Amino acid sequence: MENETESIFAKIIRGDIPCYKIYEDDNTLAFLDIHPVSSGHTLVVSKTEAPYVWDLNPMDYQNLMESVKKIADRLKEVLNPDYISEMVVGYDVKHAHVHLIPFSSPLDLQRLFDTHKPETNDEELTQLADRLKF
Amino acid sequence: MENETESIFAKIIRGDIPCYKIYEDDNTLAFLDIHPVSSGHTLVVSKTEAPYVWDLNPMDYQNLMESVKKIADRLKEVLNPDYISEMVVGYDVKHAHVHLIPFSSPLDLQRLFDTHKPETNDEELTQLADRLKF
Repeated sequence: MENETESIFAKIIRGDIPCYKIYEDDNTLAFLDIHPVSSGHTLVVSKTEAPYVWDLNPMDYQNLMESVKKIADRLKEVLNPDYISEMVVGYDVKHAHVHLIPFSSPLDLQRLFDTHKPETNDEELTQLADRLKF
Repeated sequence: MENETESIFAKIIRGDIPCYKIYEDDNTLAFLDIHPVSSGHTLVVSKTEAPYVWDLNPMDYQNLMESVKKIADRLKEVLNPDYISEMVVGYDVKHAHVHLIPFSSPLDLQRLFDTHKPETNDEELTQLADRLKF
C-alpha cells in the first residue's frame, strides 16, 4: 500500500520515480531539478526522511553537507560558472535537501522565487546529467 | 599598514570593526547582518580567509557548516520562525560566509535580492543580539 505521507523525494530515492541522477552514496542522492532556475540546478537530498535540513541529526547533516561540497566542486569543474549558490528554502518539498545553483547572473538566483524559469526538456537534462555524473 | 585587499569580514573578525556578535569559536564568527532581509538575519563567517565557501578546505568547510547548524537551532529556539533559510550567494563579500534567514513569509527571502529591505537600527540590533547570544 502506498505511503501517502512520504515525499516525492522518498519515491525518487526508492527508484519509484526516475531522476536525472548525478551522484549517490549511502546517505545522499543528487539529481537535476526538473524545473531548473539555471542550467545545472541540482538537488542534494538526504536519504534520511526528515522534513527539514535542520531536523537531521548531526551525522546526517554533516553527510549531506559533505555531498553538497562534492557536487559544488563537480558543477564548478564541468560547467565553470562564476558562482555556485547553495540554498535551503523550506517551503518547497518537506524532505531535507539543498539546492545548488550554478550561475553567472544574479537573475538566475532570483528566478528561484518566481515563475520565470527557463525552458528545458528531457534531452537537455539527460545530456547534462551525463556530463555531471560521477 | 592596512591590508587593502582584506575583506570587511576580516576586519570584523580582528575586532577593528564592531559587530552584533551572537557566536564565536576558534573557526567561525556569527553576527547579525546590518542590512537584514528579516529580523534575525545572521552571517556565519569562516575565520579562514578564503574568498568563497567552495574554496575552504574540507575541515574549515565542515567547521563552518557545524556552526551554521548550531546557529540555525538557536534562531529557531529564540525566534521560532516557520523556516530558516540558509544561503550561499557569492557576489556579495568575497570572504567565505553563509546567510541564515529566519522567515515565515517567502517575501522575506526574496528581499535578499532587491533593495526593499526593512528598516532597522542600532537599538533593535543590540537587543536582538542580546537575545540570540550563546
